Amino acid sequence: MDDVLTYLHEHYERHLEDLRAFVGIPSVSTEEQRAPDVRRAAEWVAARLGSAGLTDVLVHETPGHPVVTASWTNLPGAPTILIYGHYDVQPPDPLDRWDSPPFEATERDGKLFARGVSDDKAPMLIPIRVIEAFLKVHGALPVNVKLLFEGEEEIGSPHLGAFVRGHAAQLQADFVLSADGGMWRADVPTLTVSARGLTALEFTVRGPGRDLHSGRHGGGLHNPLHVIARMVASLHDPEGRVSVDGFYNDVSPLSPDIRADTAALPFSDETYLREVDAPGTFGEPGYSTLERQWYRPTLELNGLWGGYTGQGVKTVLPSEAHAKITCRLVPGQDPDRVRERIQDHLRLHAPPGVTVTFKGGGHGAPAYRIPPEHVGLRVAREALRSVYGQEPLMVGMGGSIPICDTFREALGMDTVFFSFAVGDENIHAPNEFFRLTRFQEGAQAWSAYFGALARSRDSVATAGG
Amino acid sequence: MDDVLTYLHEHYERHLEDLRAFVGIPSVSTEEQRAPDVRRAAEWVAARLGSAGLTDVLVHETPGHPVVTASWTNLPGAPTILIYGHYDVQPPDPLDRWDSPPFEATERDGKLFARGVSDDKAPMLIPIRVIEAFLKVHGALPVNVKLLFEGEEEIGSPHLGAFVRGHAAQLQADFVLSADGGMWRADVPTLTVSARGLTALEFTVRGPGRDLHSGRHGGGLHNPLHVIARMVASLHDPEGRVSVDGFYNDVSPLSPDIRADTAALPFSDETYLREVDAPGTFGEPGYSTLERQWYRPTLELNGLWGGYTGQGVKTVLPSEAHAKITCRLVPGQDPDRVRERIQDHLRLHAPPGVTVTFKGGGHGAPAYRIPPEHVGLRVAREALRSVYGQEPLMVGMGGSIPICDTFREALGMDTVFFSFAVGDENIHAPNEFFRLTRFQEGAQAWSAYFGALARSRDSVATAGG
Repeated sequence: MDDVLTYLHEHYERHLEDLRAFVGIPSVSTEEQRAPDVRRAAEWVAARLGSAGLTDVLVHETPGHPVVTASWTNLPGAPTILIYGHYDVQPPDPLDRWDSPPFEATERDGKLFARGVSDDKAPMLIPIRVIEAFLKVHGALPVNVKLLFEGEEEIGSPHLGAFVRGHAAQLQADFVLSADGGMWRADVPTLTVSARGLTALEFTVRGPGRDLHSGRHGGGLHNPLHVIARMVASLHDPEGRVSVDGFYNDVSPLSPDIRADTAALPFSDETYLREVDAPGTFGEPGYSTLERQWYRPTLELNGLWGGYTGQGVKTVLPSEAHAKITCRLVPGQDPDRVRERIQDHLRLHAPPGVTVTFKGGGHGAPAYRIPPEHVGLRVAREALRSVYGQEPLMVGMGGSIPICDTFREALGMDTVFFSFAVGDENIHAPNEFFRLTRFQEGAQAWSAYFGALARSRDSVATAGG
Repeated sequence: MDDVLTYLHEHYERHLEDLRAFVGIPSVSTEEQRAPDVRRAAEWVAARLGSAGLTDVLVHETPGHPVVTASWTNLPGAPTILIYGHYDVQPPDPLDRWDSPPFEATERDGKLFARGVSDDKAPMLIPIRVIEAFLKVHGALPVNVKLLFEGEEEIGSPHLGAFVRGHAAQLQADFVLSADGGMWRADVPTLTVSARGLTALEFTVRGPGRDLHSGRHGGGLHNPLHVIARMVASLHDPEGRVSVDGFYNDVSPLSPDIRADTAALPFSDETYLREVDAPGTFGEPGYSTLERQWYRPTLELNGLWGGYTGQGVKTVLPSEAHAKITCRLVPGQDPDRVRERIQDHLRLHAPPGVTVTFKGGGHGAPAYRIPPEHVGLRVAREALRSVYGQEPLMVGMGGSIPICDTFREALGMDTVFFSFAVGDENIHAPNEFFRLTRFQEGAQAWSAYFGALARSRDSVATAGG
């Protein structure tokens, strides 16, 4: 084990160069014109897996972006884990808010800045580093590993389900160990035990068939901007509760344990507001900020637009207005059912002088919760304790990892989150960064994980599958 | 007079080529990067005035875009008119909705399509054609003319007031004859007797100091998109009345004459809705569609935006949301006072968890109404009757021509609208066009106007400013 850590230490600079090269590829999965870059990233990952010593590296075509897989399964009877990560990234907009180019890794104060560096390029490189170290130093790993890296996580993994079902035998393992996810705080080792689900929709309000002069026509017709504002405003009550009929129907109340654990975390609204530079918290009454962000469902506008948005004045009564919505869901809520309820609500709140159309129904995932005594969690706790010298805390996750559901449904496998990103690293925002100390700590922890899991093979045999 | 019409007929094709060249210059006054194009248009206008036979042609610098003037005042004692027009145009967005390039004149079905062709490039070329015809055929005009063409009408003429005040002696005339404006319908000759005023503002709602991940942070903070939707929705009641406190305070009730005249016009909501391709009319209860568009004040959003507006899904809780508003005002309303009332309303409706900032306060003009018996109107009625063989109808104008107020305040002059644009020509929208028959009819009417005005010199001496 010490030899592995020595190897990781000695090869740190080279591995950091790998990371710089990786984040230099603008693999933005949501932008069609970036498809060649996404493919380039897939090929980069495949090459990197090969140089780590893995043999059966494959780049699989899908109807969307490629999936990259590899494996090392030379220990019959030993536990097998499926390591998951994604090589695609969010769009870098708004570009003018970045302090350095988003696709040019820039180091400042021990942090590496680039789009995707925290979500999920550095975290997914860590297990590859560790596998390389084991294979170069010992010629073997202590457990069997399979690896799967997808290029569509940021767009809801539309083709992963079919891929996983189509490769069930090759991917079967005891459980999934996800390099995607994130620690709650840099100074508190945590393990994520739940993730919210997601449903997404986009809608368009159309008034007149073309843009009109607001001087000539204003006052005569519905302005789609007024209509969409009223429709959006109707989605919440003034206190922040979602007003969509039935939205909370299938939501179970928070357990006293969860509420107690959450209250025990070192968190204050004041510090949080300083971190995000916001004047005040807000949301569903009756819950703390963390409870609202981790364990309660939400409905958030992600985009709202129509009319003239350039410099100066344009006196236009626009033909159309648009909005993008995503909801975060908790266990019990069905993504499609929630989306339908919102669509019904919006149709009901549209006045007769406009038409409303919807799109984006394909993008959904139910929430996920892992059994608290799962062996993969237990081993993770042990590995983190060995690196950080303190007991990790259990936390929820506000974001969604739709793949948990995919792996459970397609392969009956649970997912353990073991990522070394931290929640304050501006993911999905300008100036995304990753803490470079974590590039080593993460590698230490993954090494410890492999070792501890090898020692737990009996428990795995019981809990796995 | 017949010689003048013959000249206009014989030179029609050349004049049409002039118009094609003129609309080929993208003189978008609101876009800073177009300033060189706006200047090019000013120089084009100056050259065209020179080739028409006018002598003292000048391009004047202002703190913004240039003003072009010229004159022909060789008839002491004869009436003098100041011809007004503007050579700047609206932005062409959204570009993808144009059937032909906006700055490439394209003829289809007797219409010439291009940005600015109806507002105001073809209408302002018409009096230049007519002056050229008189000067080439007779070596003189029947009345004195001064001409003023500005390049900032589409941004509210911010520097015209100072310019006019600074050149009061040179610009003094009996009244202003505006080549900007428009006929109500292609088949009904009309004269505009009022125009609504304008006030404009833009505001920004800021929540967190940077864009955040909506999964992690959603539910914890005010989403500026939700807040702006609620604020915008609060500006009107559900029936379409403006809810801003005091908005209607200084608005006088519609006179029975105006209501009777408006009701007598050949207008049906059904036909109108077909024209603009909208499912229904909407607006302040108690007024007909035309009354709402011409004689009642309005508050319209012209732009609303925030968050991710690109393709696909981006799970962002945005830092900011923005809205652009313009109001149309009627006589009695003060633009600054109305803008302040709206700002007060918005401040009052902003929750504590966000900040609101405003900009764009400079852009305002009171409404305008011309005395019904004004000699310039009488002559206009006679000229239109001579071309169209029917009595023109008096109409209001929904849009604003801030220059009316400028000329009244700076020079004590009224403004008569005498434009041959038609209200359905997609001004400020994609596929703006001008009816080519009107390029000749307009020239005929301006020729008749000059003649009739020369015959009315006694009335002018009485009514003039």
